[in-house]
Amino acid sequence: MTTSMPASKEQPICKLSFEDKLDRLAQVAVHSGLGLAPGQQLVMTATLDAVPLVRRITEHAYRAGATLVTTVLADEESALLRYRYAPDASFDCAPVWLYDGLAAAFRSGAARLAVAGSNPSLLSQEDPQKVSRANRAASKAYRPAMELITRHEINWTIVSCATPAWAAAVFPGLSQDEAMSRLWDAIFAASRADRPDPVAAWKEHDAKLHERAAQLNHKRYSALHFRGPGTDLRVGLSDGHLWLGGGTTAANGRYCIPNMPTEEVFTTPHKDRVDGCVTSTKPLSHQGTMIDKISVRFHGGRIIEAHAATGEQVLQRMIETDEGARRLGEVSLVPQSSPIASSGLLFNNTLFDENAACHIALGQAYSNCLEGGDKASQEDLAARGANESLIHVDWMIGSSLIDVEGITADGRAEPVMRQGEWV
Amino acid sequence: MTTSMPASKEQPICKLSFEDKLDRLAQVAVHSGLGLAPGQQLVMTATLDAVPLVRRITEHAYRAGATLVTTVLADEESALLRYRYAPDASFDCAPVWLYDGLAAAFRSGAARLAVAGSNPSLLSQEDPQKVSRANRAASKAYRPAMELITRHEINWTIVSCATPAWAAAVFPGLSQDEAMSRLWDAIFAASRADRPDPVAAWKEHDAKLHERAAQLNHKRYSALHFRGPGTDLRVGLSDGHLWLGGGTTAANGRYCIPNMPTEEVFTTPHKDRVDGCVTSTKPLSHQGTMIDKISVRFHGGRIIEAHAATGEQVLQRMIETDEGARRLGEVSLVPQSSPIASSGLLFNNTLFDENAACHIALGQAYSNCLEGGDKASQEDLAARGANESLIHVDWMIGSSLIDVEGITADGRAEPVMRQGEWV
Repeated sequence: MTTSMPASKEQPICKLSFEDKLDRLAQVAVHSGLGLAPGQQLVMTATLDAVPLVRRITEHAYRAGATLVTTVLADEESALLRYRYAPDASFDCAPVWLYDGLAAAFRSGAARLAVAGSNPSLLSQEDPQKVSRANRAASKAYRPAMELITRHEINWTIVSCATPAWAAAVFPGLSQDEAMSRLWDAIFAASRADRPDPVAAWKEHDAKLHERAAQLNHKRYSALHFRGPGTDLRVGLSDGHLWLGGGTTAANGRYCIPNMPTEEVFTTPHKDRVDGCVTSTKPLSHQGTMIDKISVRFHGGRIIEAHAATGEQVLQRMIETDEGARRLGEVSLVPQSSPIASSGLLFNNTLFDENAACHIALGQAYSNCLEGGDKASQEDLAARGANESLIHVDWMIGSSLIDVEGITADGRAEPVMRQGEWV
Repeated sequence: MTTSMPASKEQPICKLSFEDKLDRLAQVAVHSGLGLAPGQQLVMTATLDAVPLVRRITEHAYRAGATLVTTVLADEESALLRYRYAPDASFDCAPVWLYDGLAAAFRSGAARLAVAGSNPSLLSQEDPQKVSRANRAASKAYRPAMELITRHEINWTIVSCATPAWAAAVFPGLSQDEAMSRLWDAIFAASRADRPDPVAAWKEHDAKLHERAAQLNHKRYSALHFRGPGTDLRVGLSDGHLWLGGGTTAANGRYCIPNMPTEEVFTTPHKDRVDGCVTSTKPLSHQGTMIDKISVRFHGGRIIEAHAATGEQVLQRMIETDEGARRLGEVSLVPQSSPIASSGLLFNNTLFDENAACHIALGQAYSNCLEGGDKASQEDLAARGANESLIHVDWMIGSSLIDVEGITADGRAEPVMRQGEWV
């Protein structure tokens, strides 16, 4: 099927300078990812390493008619100083005024673009309890803004930017220049910025993801069954679930592709109908710490046992954030032949790694993965199985050793993926 | 008198490394300037060039017990892109959500530190009408936050940071490294970061400024008369005016020194009692544009004629911001022997140049320069002569050729300054 074809059938890759590719990445971020409307304000978040890309995006946004681009720049060094010198009470604080401000910006119609590209191990040497408390306070403060995002009230997208620390984590043996160059090339390729017409390439790719989602929606499976080494997991799907992939029309009428890259089709599991055990297939970089070799047992939708070879404490604290943090909010299918998986790289970055393998997410469900979910009440969504939480953390459970079956309404098992590929 | 003595009687200057001086600048910013309380949040604003100083300040703030330091970093390049590519409607927009957020932060008790250090000519090539519209929209959006600052509801301060563009404007003939080094030295000296005990040096300096203000308050002049080349200006003082200088206790109980450096004593003129003509003695860098050789005539408190050899259009638009923009909100006395004036440098930066010469400000008055002003209503303040405006723009009218007389309640003229020095 065309939807599972690797990149070879798509547009050829062009020889372009770094600056050209950076500019094209900004172009697709604004036009394909964000679908920015003329006259709309844009709020961008990024770290200092991303400033060159931020400027390109700012230019493309203004040229597309943005009335104002405001970028909230975070300095990772300053974030570390907090862990070194701040009093203990600091770790229950968050810049509530800033997060409330973001929510206000979105409510008045601003689009949101996040430039992802942080040091995946920034906080790995810090006290996990402080990391967890700080993340919890931030998640709580960010909730009003995040709800507008997860409910797709506004058009939004996330794009990536290479940083020295990230590049060193992906290419540990290389010089900084070489590692940065390799990581940028991987980002440009996965973001289709190296195609002759990146916007057209995204249109074509988006159509394929929609076709795959339509096929799964037609099946109306009641559950998926994942099987492989260390994994025997039945994931019940929520009542009236919708498979989504690629772009979506936000409530403000703008068509956006919320993740760049994206190779996944995903839906909302039933928060009470997940059973069995599952083992992660890639390390998870979670807000500055690494969690690896996660092994979890679910019963009645709830994690009843959780281990990790690395970062177990962070994992434990994460699932203790609230009741919903130990239940699933997303299940996602990605074939091993996806361009990112084909690269063979471990990116230590969820935006990339989740698009290289099937994955699940603990925490908040996306309401638009349920029929009529955008307009449904929280109670109605919960009754249909949609999970609620302050967190939404994706982690990878797919590999070429994993088979996936779809369980039909009458209990029959149909093969969906075999050895990590669509059947 | 000790208050008018030049720096020579103060602590000697030490030989310190750049990093040591930068660290001491951060230390005095937090301890002498801000008077940060343990358990208080800090909101900082800065441009990207200031990141090394921002990190030092962040460290000192956390070590002083700050629960959270949040820095809003502005990128000047992105600001320029707006002028190059944004649609016309952009220039009536402002990030209202961000300014409202700052006001919310201050209302919940956060202190505010601004790191000044921008390119003084950033917008000088841009359309003055767009610059003026954008400034007006920003001033309007910033007003709720600025009111909390000008009313000293919270502790706040402004410190300076050298930037390549600023250094090039101050030392046009030097290499970038040499110019930066000279500007940093001037900042360290003016901020007393080069003293053996900078915090003690500020305490001593602050006491001298308070003594000078007390002497002027004792006089209860009804007006000041400035005379010199191109200047014959009578500035009526507001009813129950207070001369202030150095630090002040904010409504939250914290003692702060709002400007670093500061060499001035200042009070609130009567908005309807300013008459005569005045000529600026230094160029004014106003939000990215230069205005030079200002020549203005007042009648009944109101500017009735305004010219400038450079930037006249920007000046005209500035005073058209609102009715209060063409009236005075501040008058300030600085002797020519102040350390900054003694340096003989033109800083193209109000924080420095206003502390090297007597100056006046168009626009908003400081309510704490009136007796009981912090608790008075807007109507009461206005009735006593305090001006209201979206703007507050200082410009320099002092020099070694200027004499200042104080006019007593019974109409006698007493010499206050002669040839720019305290009598």
